Order: sequence, then structure tokens, then C-alpha cells
Amino acid sequence: MSLELVSASRCFDGTQGVYSHRSETLKCDMRVGVYLPPAAVSQPVPAVFWLSGLTCTEQNFITKAGAQRAASALGIAIITPDTSPRGAEIPNDDAYDFGQGAGVDATQEPWSRNFRMYSYVVGELPELVASHFAVDPTRFGISGHSMGGHGALTIGLRNPTLFRTISAFSPICAPSQCPWGEKALTGYLGGDRSQWAKYDAMQLIAEIGWSGSEILVDQGEADEFLETQLKPDLLVEAAARGDVPLRLRRRTGYDHSYFFISTFIASHLEHHARYLLA
Amino acid sequence: MSLELVSASRCFDGTQGVYSHRSETLKCDMRVGVYLPPAAVSQPVPAVFWLSGLTCTEQNFITKAGAQRAASALGIAIITPDTSPRGAEIPNDDAYDFGQGAGVDATQEPWSRNFRMYSYVVGELPELVASHFAVDPTRFGISGHSMGGHGALTIGLRNPTLFRTISAFSPICAPSQCPWGEKALTGYLGGDRSQWAKYDAMQLIAEIGWSGSEILVDQGEADEFLETQLKPDLLVEAAARGDVPLRLRRRTGYDHSYFFISTFIASHLEHHARYLLA
Repeated sequence: MSLELVSASRCFDGTQGVYSHRSETLKCDMRVGVYLPPAAVSQPVPAVFWLSGLTCTEQNFITKAGAQRAASALGIAIITPDTSPRGAEIPNDDAYDFGQGAGVDATQEPWSRNFRMYSYVVGELPELVASHFAVDPTRFGISGHSMGGHGALTIGLRNPTLFRTISAFSPICAPSQCPWGEKALTGYLGGDRSQWAKYDAMQLIAEIGWSGSEILVDQGEADEFLETQLKPDLLVEAAARGDVPLRLRRRTGYDHSYFFISTFIASHLEHHARYLLA
Repeated sequence: MSLELVSASRCFDGTQGVYSHRSETLKCDMRVGVYLPPAAVSQPVPAVFWLSGLTCTEQNFITKAGAQRAASALGIAIITPDTSPRGAEIPNDDAYDFGQGAGVDATQEPWSRNFRMYSYVVGELPELVASHFAVDPTRFGISGHSMGGHGALTIGLRNPTLFRTISAFSPICAPSQCPWGEKALTGYLGGDRSQWAKYDAMQLIAEIGWSGSEILVDQGEADEFLETQLKPDLLVEAAARGDVPLRLRRRTGYDHSYFFISTFIASHLEHHARYLLA
């Protein structure tokens, strides 16, 4: 698996890189951001994988979250893949909430050939990162925002040996029960709702549980999508019923933007570090 | 002077707002970012005015610098105007380094009607901000990046009672002696170089000096524009000859990007706070 450097900038004494590689899983070229803290010069460090939300690329988090400061101080790498296969040859949709910029492992045409983001994030991407950078593959965590928060929860819950820590900002907690989720899951997976369960965090917590470290979720109370799309109460209830350690922090006055993420990202990285550096 | 709210997001317990107003000086609608720290709820706070570089709007700094964290902790507001008059009715140029996104007080056609950024930043903008927000107009500082660093230096040096503190990232230090500056000053001011001196930081330091607090400049040594456009050595030499307190910090490995700014912006705000909060 070869990797091409797109750009590299020094940041908080570490390096924020962006790389490009040919993905076998997605059958297209993919970009991925890699922040390496100064500690990675001398030894492999833990890494947190970040999944961004609808409409985002690998750029949003690395330019807007200000996460490099805390990652540098804690000695943690941050891996930020693009959010979907991308390119002129990849199927797309005019809507902002479907097609390029949104992904699972699709089974429906025309998406099934390329839209295999689940397999990419649990297979090709961690292998690629572990083989090219000074990161320790036994100490990976996962986090994300909105649709990417949904991704972090569902991917983390289903892969407890790959990802030891999970957190999320404003995740779509029950995609089977909200407009964004119903549209995407119908389009990518078809109308048989029994096929949706493995992409629904609420259902996964109820069905397979989680015996790992506490799951941390931050949710802004002024978030314009809170009631219609995100529904964190459903996640909290499922966690309580399933005895899953989940902490939801409701943040008064905060919205769905990166201003919210930038405010609390250091706290999330500290949460991951507490377990990954223990 | 009325002001319309464009957006507001809670950020580090303060508020990152963007406002729009009709500028009498520039004869167009202008946007300005205003970050108010939590301390501004109970009393007027000092404010640092930030001038961004070529191609930027008010958005770049507020989304990419991560400055709100330090501004919140220190209790300092940050004012981020757009970098030039803007709009379909405003003259423009196809080049990235001239026309909209770059400005002084132009005397040449077609620029002279709208391109009066110097007057805007020293007159209308501080009045507007002081009349609408909990900021203390006796405690203003100024900073900026690249072309905006040039702006911060020249505007600060010429207005020591309005701006008590000055800092800059990667400023164009001697625009009369570099391609960016020669192009812009010729276009906006005409070919008579005697008219350029008041927009040249190196010449201003030599001619009018500065008896205020130490001027802080950060410059990345991997900056692709260092030798051809920025020329900080000329500024340092002029400051030494003129006995002007100027500290240039050369940062090994850092480039011209916001990854550089985000790394050191907290240190700059602390520098301003040291004097403005004294």
C-alpha cells in the first residue's frame, strides 16, 4: 500500500500531513489527514480516528477543530479520512445528505461498488496508517461528528478490539428513526429494515452492548438538528437498559458547528488518552 | 451605524458572531467577525483587531486560528474585518494578489472610490465596534497575517493612541521592495514612490518610530514567501537603527499557513493582554 504526500505543515511542534492513496476497498483515490505529535518521533503513539459529518472532507477537522494543540500535548496522533469515496467516476447525488460525503457499506446500485466506508475504516485505513506512521495499532480510539459521530459509535461498538475508546459530538444516534438516516439507509441498503440494525447505534447498544471504556458524547442544546435528527435520549435510554457506560454531556447554548467541536475537542482527546495511555 | 447579525455560535463559553453593516467609508456592505469572551458579559474588555491575508475574508481567522480558546481565558475580544470592500458592484481584478481581498487607501481609478481600508480600520470600524459591543476603546491592539500583518504594522505604527499593542505573523515588512507590494502600491497609489512610504512598515519605523510596547513578530522559517515577499530582516534592521522595541521570533519548520498561526496565536494574545490588561 503506497501513500503520496499531498501537503505537510508543522503545527504545535508536530506535523499535520495530508496523504493520498489508491483504495482497493473503495476503488478510488482517497485522501487522509494524519497529525503526528512530537512524541511520535521517538516511539509509536496512540491514534484517534476522526470521522467528519455530511458534506465534509478530510480538511474540515484538520483546519477548524484546533485539535492539534491537545494532540501534541497528550502525544496522540489523529487520523482523519475523507467521508466517502470521491471523484468524477464515483456515483453521486445532488443532495447534500446523500452520495459523496456520506457513506456506509452499500448493498444497492449504483452505490455498492464504491460506497464501502465501513470496510475501509475498519480494514484498509488502519492497516495503511499502522504500516506508514509511528502509531501503535493496539491503542486506537475513534470519534466523530454528526454523521461521523454515528460512524464512530457504530464502528466502535462493532469493533471493540480494534477501537478501544469511543466518543462522539452530536451523533445521529438512531438513524433508523430520523430523516437523514432513513434516506441514507434506504438508498444504500434498500428497504428491508432488518439490514439497517448494524448501522444504528441505539440498536447496536441494545443488541451487542459494549464492555469497554466509558463512551463519551457531547451534544449542544442549541443544535438545530437535535430533535429531528440526532435524538441522543434514545441512545442514553438504550445504554441504561443495556448497562453500557455512556456519558452524555448536554452543553447549554452550543450549536452543531465546529465552534462547538473546537471548544470541547481537547476534553475528548483527554478522555481517549486516559485509556489509551494508561 | 446599524449592524445586522449574520450568525452567532457559542465558543469557549463566549460568542463568535459575524455581523454585516453598510460602510460609509467603503461604500458597500461589509462583514466583521466579533468574538466576545465570557468576561464581556460583566464589563467592557480589551479587543485585538485581526487583519487577514490575501484572498481571505472574515471567515479564515475565526474558523482556522483556534484563537477563541485563549481569548476566552484571557478575557479579550477579537475583531476580524473582511480584508477589502467586496461585492458585484466593487471593482476587482482576476489576480489573487490584487483587487478584492487586498486593500489600502487607494488614490487611483478604479479603486479610489471603495478601496479605503486604512480609513475603515482606523475610523469607522473601531467606532462601530465600540458603539455596539462591550469593548473598551482605550484598550485596543492590532495583529494580522501576511498582507494583514503588513496592515497591522503600518496601521499600528501610524495610530499609537488608537492601537496600544502591535503584533504580526509573517508580515510583508517592506512592500516597496517586494513583488506583492510593488504591484499593489503601484495599482492603488500610482507610480510615485514617495506616496508609498506611509504603507511601508520598514520606512515607517525608520521615519516615525514607535514608543509603545514591544512589537511581536513570528515568522516561520519554512515559509515559501520568506525571501521573496516578506523580508523580516529589513524590519529588524530598521527597528534596531530606530531604537524601536521589536522582537522577531523565527520558528523552525513552520510555513505560511494557519497551522502556523494556530500554533502561536495564544502566545500573541498573551502578549497583547500583558499590556492591555495591565
